[in-house]
Amino acid sequence: MGYSYILTLSCPNRPGLVAAIGQLLFELGYNITEAQQFDEPDSKQFFMRIVFSAAIGEATAPETALGALATRFAMKWTLHDTSIRPKVILLVSKFDHCLVDLLYRWRIGELVINPVGIISNHPADTYEHIDLHAIPFHYLPVTRETKAEQEARILELVDATGADLVVLARYMQILSNNMAAALSGRCINIHHSFLPGFKGARPYHQAFDRGVKLIGATAHFVTRDLDEGPIIEQDVERISHADAPDDLIRKGRDIERRVLARAVRYYVEQRVILNGNKTIIFMH
Amino acid sequence: MGYSYILTLSCPNRPGLVAAIGQLLFELGYNITEAQQFDEPDSKQFFMRIVFSAAIGEATAPETALGALATRFAMKWTLHDTSIRPKVILLVSKFDHCLVDLLYRWRIGELVINPVGIISNHPADTYEHIDLHAIPFHYLPVTRETKAEQEARILELVDATGADLVVLARYMQILSNNMAAALSGRCINIHHSFLPGFKGARPYHQAFDRGVKLIGATAHFVTRDLDEGPIIEQDVERISHADAPDDLIRKGRDIERRVLARAVRYYVEQRVILNGNKTIIFMH
Amino acid sequence: MGYSYILTLSCPNRPGLVAAIGQLLFELGYNITEAQQFDEPDSKQFFMRIVFSAAIGEATAPETALGALATRFAMKWTLHDTSIRPKVILLVSKFDHCLVDLLYRWRIGELVINPVGIISNHPADTYEHIDLHAIPFHYLPVTRETKAEQEARILELVDATGADLVVLARYMQILSNNMAAALSGRCINIHHSFLPGFKGARPYHQAFDRGVKLIGATAHFVTRDLDEGPIIEQDVERISHADAPDDLIRKGRDIERRVLARAVRYYVEQRVILNGNKTIIFMH
Amino acid sequence: MGYSYILTLSCPNRPGLVAAIGQLLFELGYNITEAQQFDEPDSKQFFMRIVFSAAIGEATAPETALGALATRFAMKWTLHDTSIRPKVILLVSKFDHCLVDLLYRWRIGELVINPVGIISNHPADTYEHIDLHAIPFHYLPVTRETKAEQEARILELVDATGADLVVLARYMQILSNNMAAALSGRCINIHHSFLPGFKGARPYHQAFDRGVKLIGATAHFVTRDLDEGPIIEQDVERISHADAPDDLIRKGRDIERRVLARAVRYYVEQRVILNGNKTIIFMH
Repeated sequence: MGYSYILTLSCPNRPGLVAAIGQLLFELGYNITEAQQFDEPDSKQFFMRIVFSAAIGEATAPETALGALATRFAMKWTLHDTSIRPKVILLVSKFDHCLVDLLYRWRIGELVINPVGIISNHPADTYEHIDLHAIPFHYLPVTRETKAEQEARILELVDATGADLVVLARYMQILSNNMAAALSGRCINIHHSFLPGFKGARPYHQAFDRGVKLIGATAHFVTRDLDEGPIIEQDVERISHADAPDDLIRKGRDIERRVLARAVRYYVEQRVILNGNKTIIFMH
Repeated sequence: MGYSYILTLSCPNRPGLVAAIGQLLFELGYNITEAQQFDEPDSKQFFMRIVFSAAIGEATAPETALGALATRFAMKWTLHDTSIRPKVILLVSKFDHCLVDLLYRWRIGELVINPVGIISNHPADTYEHIDLHAIPFHYLPVTRETKAEQEARILELVDATGADLVVLARYMQILSNNMAAALSGRCINIHHSFLPGFKGARPYHQAFDRGVKLIGATAHFVTRDLDEGPIIEQDVERISHADAPDDLIRKGRDIERRVLARAVRYYVEQRVILNGNKTIIFMH
Repeated sequence: MGYSYILTLSCPNRPGLVAAIGQLLFELGYNITEAQQFDEPDSKQFFMRIVFSAAIGEATAPETALGALATRFAMKWTLHDTSIRPKVILLVSKFDHCLVDLLYRWRIGELVINPVGIISNHPADTYEHIDLHAIPFHYLPVTRETKAEQEARILELVDATGADLVVLARYMQILSNNMAAALSGRCINIHHSFLPGFKGARPYHQAFDRGVKLIGATAHFVTRDLDEGPIIEQDVERISHADAPDDLIRKGRDIERRVLARAVRYYVEQRVILNGNKTIIFMH
Repeated sequence: MGYSYILTLSCPNRPGLVAAIGQLLFELGYNITEAQQFDEPDSKQFFMRIVFSAAIGEATAPETALGALATRFAMKWTLHDTSIRPKVILLVSKFDHCLVDLLYRWRIGELVINPVGIISNHPADTYEHIDLHAIPFHYLPVTRETKAEQEARILELVDATGADLVVLARYMQILSNNMAAALSGRCINIHHSFLPGFKGARPYHQAFDRGVKLIGATAHFVTRDLDEGPIIEQDVERISHADAPDDLIRKGRDIERRVLARAVRYYVEQRVILNGNKTIIFMH
């Protein structure tokens, strides 16, 4: 066994960049086992994800050398030790299909996360049929009057647990601008998507009224503009005139849970790099 | 050989309706070879498509009896003799991928239509690489000043040919309200669709800027509100951060041509029934 | 409130058939709320699914009249009272993704079944993280020597519970010919599918070795020829050269659970009619 | 403007490999604009595709230096000058949907190829509705007796034109082992695929008889075992019990043409690297 890291970086593209990174990791004693890069033609910005590893005792810790390289090339970078599971807090409301799905994928080892908390605005017995394991459950009810206070409590929990990622697993509450800003870049939401898009309440009923033939879901980073953050993943299913709103909601559940699960997996596997209001997704 | 008809109808749902239709066709000497129905729970409206046939000399012409039945049940109905190919006019601009595709499907017998005219705001030599067969080609250039006149000429051609259907095969001109109204229910348009939707010019560039992960196309009936008419068919393809606007346009061409071709086929096979701002599509 | 039934039938196609069924239900006092039919051109066989309902006290029980009609037209038919949930037995082995998924859909009311038993060749604590509710759990280990005996015990449970449907939710045991025959037409299995197909053990590894670009799953009725029974539903997902066998297995789980769930729903909603070695699926 | 190259390579994975390639291209004066790599865990084989470019006069021709590097790392490699269009020969029979589609994509600039010949076992007037432009057309009829001779003539044309790629665009003739061997690695075929697979004649009719719910197509390199060569691309569409064999054939045409077009594009963009009986496809 040995060390294994995932490095992600973005910086202005410059000749010699790939050579410099490759050379540095080689000299430190690492072997590159996976690498993906993207050169954005317009902005001349360069994005890269590299997985590298070494046998214990045969390589030098990479942080210092990477820091120097990053300074030289004006890189934004993150380094992730793959032996450490990202800490995740799940926010949920009454609908539990995404929660159940994420916990299942975690339990069987598909989603390599460390769930450090579940927060709901509904009491624990809402989830009595779900094995929450030893994950701390926090019942934080919210009203218009207590919203600021409740959000402050959520942020305290995020801080106290050191959560790397907050997942809005059908949380159904609109985050305040302050809250959205505080979680910027580390909070993923799932919401319905349609062709054309619909604003406002009861979107599946709106889609039904419009007679669309496809419904979908979008997983995205949370920003101040709630449903407009950088998109991570989307998917759709076909519907017909014979599908009632309840059928749309049923199909929507299936799309939502798989789209959110993929987005969370991309995030914890360090496959997502922010590029302004867009994302680079280094899927294999 | 014999007669074969497709009947489509819509009316308020009433007990005895299916029995009455079945009984009438039986008494007239026809055999039902295909039937699809849809009962809309909310509006209590009933929709049906029936294919029926008989050997020559063994059945009575159905129009009169159906007319009486239609009166009794307050039906809107259409009766299509399957030996008659629907007459179709194709409107096209510079981009010819939908035109080429529709003509190909017609030539090999997949799309059973009678193309009675091609109208373009570009001259005939724009399409020099396409075998237009003996289909009359009409070059009708248009400017802001001549738009009313040009549209009047198009409507004259629609009338003169007795066209059942006008297909905007990437026509790229916005129809006037009058024109849209005149073609209501018999004019199909294809346009790009995205999650979320984008208004205005250069939609593929907007989608690129937004970083969507799926792009799509929608075929719909033309109404006054150009891109908001009843939807007939939609489809999508997956894209990634590495797809440039040109890649989106390339993938868009593939989606557009297959979505439009399906919509036209559904229409000519009498599979589409209007239901307010929605469609019933009796696919098999 | 009132009565609601689903009638499915198949018989040789004859003029007057639809009229006779419609007339009979009308006379009995029922309203047809959904109807789908299919006329197979080659065999001249007719298939139909009809949902009909009446207010209590306003209609006659339909069994006797339908029986007479069935005799007249040589129909095979089933009549399902929609107030009665089909009884289902789930067979499962070590992999529990389909079990978890089916139980979840049942719990939230999406899958309207009555689960009367779970049978596994693994002990109950294998499923300690799953809320099995009050569903009787039967641990029936099996070896080559005890297979006949174990299968007899399964069939006893099917008989004793009056199960309408047996679902092999990744059961992983090959049923004997006798067992398969005994459950014919009321047992659904899920298995992996690939382009091209692979026989034998470790199919995902075979697919990996072959370099396929799509993997899939098939839900089908069990027959003596294990993986060759009438197909109910299939779906696929895209894979790439970078997907290791474990990635294929992960994606396979997602496909398997949704394909099996759809097949079970079609079955319990009486949407599946057997047609020799094929199925008619009356989806809406 | 300047030079632009695509380098593809495969070799045993070794530390320092990426660094060495990056360093060399940097020293030669090139900028890497696209790079994708894949490290196969089992075989420890390394695969890479690199796009690099330089302004004219600012870089050294890369062949010699790359040759030396290739020797050092035991690389198989190809270098493609992007200003040179790959020469392609199209083989076709009676069904022309793939031919029409490929020629259209070439005409509008989507498929950057140089079509140096069309070979058919049917005479030129079979394609009278298609603008073959100035592409040389070769009518090479074939019978059991003349097969060896006809194939020899095809290979002569491949040699004489210097074709980089031979596309069997629904050619419908089984190549001899010798012919397949002679074209190994540079000949792409399209054929139907189903779940499960079917051997022998009239596969769409077999699929219909089996009652599959999905049909598909596979584009693959030709090898001696005709339909078993390395897979490049696959896709499927959904069918139902109501689809007759003719509907399957119609849907099959759509799948075949888009799958083949993608495979050809991947090939001409140097995105395909052979890995034994599998392919690495560096899609973006």
